[in-house]
Amino acid sequence: MSPSNAGHDARGLIIPIGGAEEKFRDPVILKRFAEACGPASTIAIIPTASQLEDTGARYVEIFKELGIANPISLAFNTREDCHNEAMLAELITAAGIFLTGGNQLRLSTTLGGTPVAQAIRRRNAEGVHVAGTSAGAGFMSEHMIAFGDEGYTPRANMVTLSPGLGLTNKIIVDQHFHQRERRGRLLTTISYNPFAVGVGLGEDTAAIIGPDDTLEVIGSGGVTIIDPSGIEYSSMDSAHRDDPVCIVGAKLHILVDGWRYDLVTKKAIQPQEARV
Amino acid sequence: MSPSNAGHDARGLIIPIGGAEEKFRDPVILKRFAEACGPASTIAIIPTASQLEDTGARYVEIFKELGIANPISLAFNTREDCHNEAMLAELITAAGIFLTGGNQLRLSTTLGGTPVAQAIRRRNAEGVHVAGTSAGAGFMSEHMIAFGDEGYTPRANMVTLSPGLGLTNKIIVDQHFHQRERRGRLLTTISYNPFAVGVGLGEDTAAIIGPDDTLEVIGSGGVTIIDPSGIEYSSMDSAHRDDPVCIVGAKLHILVDGWRYDLVTKKAIQPQEARV
Repeated sequence: MSPSNAGHDARGLIIPIGGAEEKFRDPVILKRFAEACGPASTIAIIPTASQLEDTGARYVEIFKELGIANPISLAFNTREDCHNEAMLAELITAAGIFLTGGNQLRLSTTLGGTPVAQAIRRRNAEGVHVAGTSAGAGFMSEHMIAFGDEGYTPRANMVTLSPGLGLTNKIIVDQHFHQRERRGRLLTTISYNPFAVGVGLGEDTAAIIGPDDTLEVIGSGGVTIIDPSGIEYSSMDSAHRDDPVCIVGAKLHILVDGWRYDLVTKKAIQPQEARV
Repeated sequence: MSPSNAGHDARGLIIPIGGAEEKFRDPVILKRFAEACGPASTIAIIPTASQLEDTGARYVEIFKELGIANPISLAFNTREDCHNEAMLAELITAAGIFLTGGNQLRLSTTLGGTPVAQAIRRRNAEGVHVAGTSAGAGFMSEHMIAFGDEGYTPRANMVTLSPGLGLTNKIIVDQHFHQRERRGRLLTTISYNPFAVGVGLGEDTAAIIGPDDTLEVIGSGGVTIIDPSGIEYSSMDSAHRDDPVCIVGAKLHILVDGWRYDLVTKKAIQPQEARV
């Protein structure tokens, strides 16, 4: 898919969350998303990634706690469901769309190429905020990590990409980043084509991407930014499948709550500067 | 990367070729590309994918034989070369750009995110024709097959995707399709996200994609079209890595010289109808 934002400057927020976000004590990430949508709004929860029966209902309760008037769970469980007119009509009334965690391939195989994917893309371009946690975060960008191996060092064969939802092509997201040692697979991913910025999200940590393509970090963990634009050399094209891959010249930032990163100029922005 | 065509309707042709195209006796594919560019034109050959010293020079001779006034080979061998102002200035004078065969990861790792990739995308959106053979064909679309296994049956782990050049997001191309038994990996690819149409190109066979997103088949072999839009079910999200994957409801077309396929309506068009 292609980024849904072509030609628009009123895009809604894109909020990938690294998974395991705090839900009760001090849920800063979910609260920020809820505030952006507004208390009188409808938030549509899409629990497709999850295999658990109660995932949608659980987030309905959480968003009620956060003061949202009308949180609804839309169970698009099959590709046929994704053509259900009544559910689609509910989806397009939402001011915010929330993709739960689970398995990101269940999201892409179920929603991909259906009116649901089209509606989320169109509504985001029109100003609706879209957040996703864990699998939901991975699915949001144009190129998504479907699955891969753990490890610190990139290897030619350690990650499998898939087309994602395509809300933005400027980043490729990995989640549970520090907890599951995913540095190797994110480096492998960005070295295939040093175009998109790699964004490794720790748990309980999110990147809030505005319509100006500036990303703001929020939450209790860190965000690893890998900017590939300065890569001078990589051995990716000549490496055998399980070989470690050499990469020279990538730029690395570890950003925490309040820091921003401009995805266009590829510059990190300190909290003080950002809030002048 | 995102499709370069957003907002334009004067895009140049996009011509992925399945590899091993006839070069001397009756080179219908290369001749068609040369005619589209015009005899007085410059054609820029980018031999980056190839490890052979003479690949660029060889295509210079072939295009001279076909009556092109100024075929030039631009050896973007490193990422530093992709910032060379003199070579970039030559590239943007071309009416046609030709990407040779070799290794598509050499194309994406070398050109990705550099001014060369940007220039090809921009010039194609402005009307310059871009053809690529074998690795060059694979690289052209938004989502590219980097490498994978042979085999008839899709398996969850058999293919590795990478971001490609992004001239179109409507197709994902595989080349040497019949000769190297790539049905399994193309089906695996499209089932990750049933959005883009799978285009399996036989050798000496090409798809000529116009600005209206209609594809025309030319050459001595067949083109396998896999339309995923009707897929009702796949087991991709639940399959273990080496399991065979179940896919229900994909549509299959085998098209030969003169047939067309509309990538928007997903309809095959007979030669007679196409030429009324």
